[in-house]
Amino acid sequence: MTQQDLIEQFAIEQLLYKYGFDVDNRDAAAYADCFTPDAVVSGPGFEMRNDVAGPTIDMLSSMYEATLHCVHNHTHTIQGDRATGMTYCVASHIQNQNGQRSKMDMYIRYHDELVKRDGQWRFSKRRLEVVCTTTVPVNPAG
Amino acid sequence: MTQQDLIEQFAIEQLLYKYGFDVDNRDAAAYADCFTPDAVVSGPGFEMRNDVAGPTIDMLSSMYEATLHCVHNHTHTIQGDRATGMTYCVASHIQNQNGQRSKMDMYIRYHDELVKRDGQWRFSKRRLEVVCTTTVPVNPAG
Amino acid sequence: MTQQDLIEQFAIEQLLYKYGFDVDNRDAAAYADCFTPDAVVSGPGFEMRNDVAGPTIDMLSSMYEATLHCVHNHTHTIQGDRATGMTYCVASHIQNQNGQRSKMDMYIRYHDELVKRDGQWRFSKRRLEVVCTTTVPVNPAG
Repeated sequence: MTQQDLIEQFAIEQLLYKYGFDVDNRDAAAYADCFTPDAVVSGPGFEMRNDVAGPTIDMLSSMYEATLHCVHNHTHTIQGDRATGMTYCVASHIQNQNGQRSKMDMYIRYHDELVKRDGQWRFSKRRLEVVCTTTVPVNPAG
Repeated sequence: MTQQDLIEQFAIEQLLYKYGFDVDNRDAAAYADCFTPDAVVSGPGFEMRNDVAGPTIDMLSSMYEATLHCVHNHTHTIQGDRATGMTYCVASHIQNQNGQRSKMDMYIRYHDELVKRDGQWRFSKRRLEVVCTTTVPVNPAG
Repeated sequence: MTQQDLIEQFAIEQLLYKYGFDVDNRDAAAYADCFTPDAVVSGPGFEMRNDVAGPTIDMLSSMYEATLHCVHNHTHTIQGDRATGMTYCVASHIQNQNGQRSKMDMYIRYHDELVKRDGQWRFSKRRLEVVCTTTVPVNPAG
């Protein structure tokens, strides 16, 4: 392993984290920049192509008060300007139904393909394997 | 990005983790060393200055059987001996009320300012944004 | 801190993650390769020696539909080809009892000793400190 390998691994880790921050911040432009222009994002019952960022942000904004994508274990194999890998994530979704707030947690294994262009790593494919979801009440604020 | 940049990023990541370990270990001296002497820690309805470590450890010790600060996504921008960044954390607090144990999870986004002095990164400001809290029962031990 | 130190720290982090991936994938051969041949794994009420991987995978396969070992904060002190450290993990266990699915989360602090042999870090001792467990229902799929 070389210093350059470490730098690339760090850059990919930061992309995994940035994905979570951008989507939770509802920052569509920053989120779009996590993907290549021809990226494909898929999961149980859906597949998105081309503009994956806008519709995702719109959907999350309309359905949830807030989200928090907590990113955990990750491993990536890099070959030149391409990489494949897996990442665990627990994505918490705060819902408000008639004043009753709850937290839906989605347990995700992301299966990813990445490409480095112009010095920046981006997702070209991101497939969500959803292990399960759980929902618990949110405590009253205060 | 240089080798030195990676070393600084690693040192900051370790500080984020050390913060969690020290507070969960109720190690007030180690925890105090996470902060500059003039550090300010703030959050919903509170702001602490000067000795932030002692009162925090005392409060947690009196209220909870145990805590576990699990640190997730983080990103930091470093400029010389200063840095700013954000960190996700789910802080689990084990409560015991008349023998009924429960786990209160606090979903936190830490907004941080850091300073490197004498070769060590420390928090000069740490602002807690609390996204929500949830409480679920703890299973009987055994 | 040197470039080599960073490379060793990265390799240990990847072992922590690999442990989670391998056990969740029920990959007994890969999981076994996380340990030295004489490794000891212990926790509340149990101690395993020699073949720790096979029985662990068999037990998890028989008891749970799926597991997800999410690895969090970690810190390791390296001295030559030996290291000691601590790692936080929330291990989610998906149970199915007569069609009722639930998720049992085990909050773990792993206390580890590691050895580097033939260029690869492995656990020689792994002690599980279980802070608590919680169980919540799993949402219906779909």
